[in-house]
Amino acid sequence: MRRRRRRSDCPIHFGLEVFGDPWTLLILRDLLLKGRSTYSDFLHAEEGIATNVLADRLTRLEQDGLVVADRGAEGGRAHRYRPTSKAIDLLPVLLEIIAWSAAYDPATAADPAFVARLRSDRAGLERDLRDRAAVLAPATTQEEP
Amino acid sequence: MRRRRRRSDCPIHFGLEVFGDPWTLLILRDLLLKGRSTYSDFLHAEEGIATNVLADRLTRLEQDGLVVADRGAEGGRAHRYRPTSKAIDLLPVLLEIIAWSAAYDPATAADPAFVARLRSDRAGLERDLRDRAAVLAPATTQEEP
Repeated sequence: MRRRRRRSDCPIHFGLEVFGDPWTLLILRDLLLKGRSTYSDFLHAEEGIATNVLADRLTRLEQDGLVVADRGAEGGRAHRYRPTSKAIDLLPVLLEIIAWSAAYDPATAADPAFVARLRSDRAGLERDLRDRAAVLAPATTQEEP
Repeated sequence: MRRRRRRSDCPIHFGLEVFGDPWTLLILRDLLLKGRSTYSDFLHAEEGIATNVLADRLTRLEQDGLVVADRGAEGGRAHRYRPTSKAIDLLPVLLEIIAWSAAYDPATAADPAFVARLRSDRAGLERDLRDRAAVLAPATTQEEP
């Protein structure tokens, strides 16, 4: 997916330019909600992302400051990806998508306990997920807004 | 955009299958936040959607039960599109995208007063937007969950 010239400064449009690709949001889901952090983790997620698509989206996520790639001293492929606070701040978007899908998808695989807590204790759930994701975040981005 | 065979029942994936296309979300933005409701309104939005893309996305939104098209007795092109409650329930997703973009986009066109209210009175803002959108909704869907 190539980045196009920006068409407007509308905040919805800005968001979609960064994470509005379905595969990108699924990688963020894996990273923020499923505890997946390696190339192999993402590649083997249930939707079966193609390896070239995955590599492209990870590069874009890194360029957009949403993930930091841990590379060995010799460089090469990252052995682990960490979400930045910019990515962690997308948790509310993911939670609202889950709430909507759980309401409208009869075949939803959403965990009923998770959805129940989302409805009854949204703030507490978000806090717990942020805390869990922050452990994975690179130290230098934990202090950001 | 053709609908693919569904790859998983993950709630994020379900949501993305329905509204995870950037143009689709921009149409929903126009419908739910900008008071735009006609084909011409959507076509002239700031991002400059192509007419074939717009026609395709409106057809999908109608098939997915997110919009109802008002057509004259003789059929043909709809003169107006109305959001269903299934679409109105996406307002929280849009609001979280706006909040995130307003925080991270230095060039954001988000209205500062809107963003300030989103931060200080999110529930009240959502209620007002729901009320405004409900006026446009087709009568038969206003009672849905």
